[in-house]
Amino acid sequence: MKTPIEFYFDFTSPYSYLASEMIEPLAARHDRVVAYRPTLLGAAFKVSGQRALVDIPIKGDYSRRDLARSARFYDIPFQLPEPFPVSTVTAARCCLVLQREHPPLAVPFIHLMFRAFFVQGWNISEAEVVRSVLAESGAHPTAVLDAAGRPENKEALKAAVDASIDRGVFGAPFFFVDAEPFWGNDRLPQMERWLASGAF
Amino acid sequence: MKTPIEFYFDFTSPYSYLASEMIEPLAARHDRVVAYRPTLLGAAFKVSGQRALVDIPIKGDYSRRDLARSARFYDIPFQLPEPFPVSTVTAARCCLVLQREHPPLAVPFIHLMFRAFFVQGWNISEAEVVRSVLAESGAHPTAVLDAAGRPENKEALKAAVDASIDRGVFGAPFFFVDAEPFWGNDRLPQMERWLASGAF
Repeated sequence: MKTPIEFYFDFTSPYSYLASEMIEPLAARHDRVVAYRPTLLGAAFKVSGQRALVDIPIKGDYSRRDLARSARFYDIPFQLPEPFPVSTVTAARCCLVLQREHPPLAVPFIHLMFRAFFVQGWNISEAEVVRSVLAESGAHPTAVLDAAGRPENKEALKAAVDASIDRGVFGAPFFFVDAEPFWGNDRLPQMERWLASGAF
Repeated sequence: MKTPIEFYFDFTSPYSYLASEMIEPLAARHDRVVAYRPTLLGAAFKVSGQRALVDIPIKGDYSRRDLARSARFYDIPFQLPEPFPVSTVTAARCCLVLQREHPPLAVPFIHLMFRAFFVQGWNISEAEVVRSVLAESGAHPTAVLDAAGRPENKEALKAAVDASIDRGVFGAPFFFVDAEPFWGNDRLPQMERWLASGAF
């Protein structure tokens, strides 16, 4: 039994969105499934002393151009939303609730949430937007949002974020194939070779 | 007449070294030449608030692993030298002197300098190492080192670094194809498509 490809992401990370549109066919080509691991990059940035790409002087301007070009390169619909970046705490908590309580709805929710932000340009930090995406995913929005606000579910996200940092996840998308870490959607070609041939 | 591919690099940048081993055949495939632009990343990092990759918490550990794996992926000999990173002021000044006074020796010097650091593991901040690489390149070491230390050549490097920052070069390798910027050797596939098809 092959282990899943673990995919750490933050819903506000545009390169995570691009990766989310490529990872399922990639995994299928190598007879793997994807384990989705929502996290919050802000916490990792505090530890590593980094900050959001678009806020870095000089680099920020380039990154806006690179994102749009990368989306065209991969032929994936994309626009940089405004405001950006946004808080994804509610979205991530709902994702964990679905993964635990309604697993078949979690993956559709993840893709719809990313597209709500990076295609429709909705502000996914707002509860009403999360509610709408939950409904579109086939979930019961009020039940999931209520669950997401409970202390044990807040703790679950905090624990997930802490675990991701302990594992070395300093940015997103971040993947593990067995124990091997791959950061960035531009490492997907290396990850594919790893999947095809084992360690190289 | 097609414009050259402009290649900004710092001799202490390991991803620049990897790119330096790939850029000539890439350019040739698209009937372009390479214009080599030595710069000093430290100055750009001051403007953008960044620092050397290997010094960033968490990210540094990953980057060491990623560098070694990327070199294997591209089948390029590589070791991370110790000490690392080092000052490349003398090497960069000598590079500019050669480009102005002995152009045919500049490209061999660039490749030999990168390999001295990332294959042999020599400390290229030391004048004796630069001297040895100059000799291997076919240059007259004392003449070039003397020229590199003259005020007008110190100014020339300072002006080159300032110009690179003005142009948005916040990291290396950094390329321009006509006016389009590409950062990182992982953008070479996008750069190749751009070269093959024009803007996409």
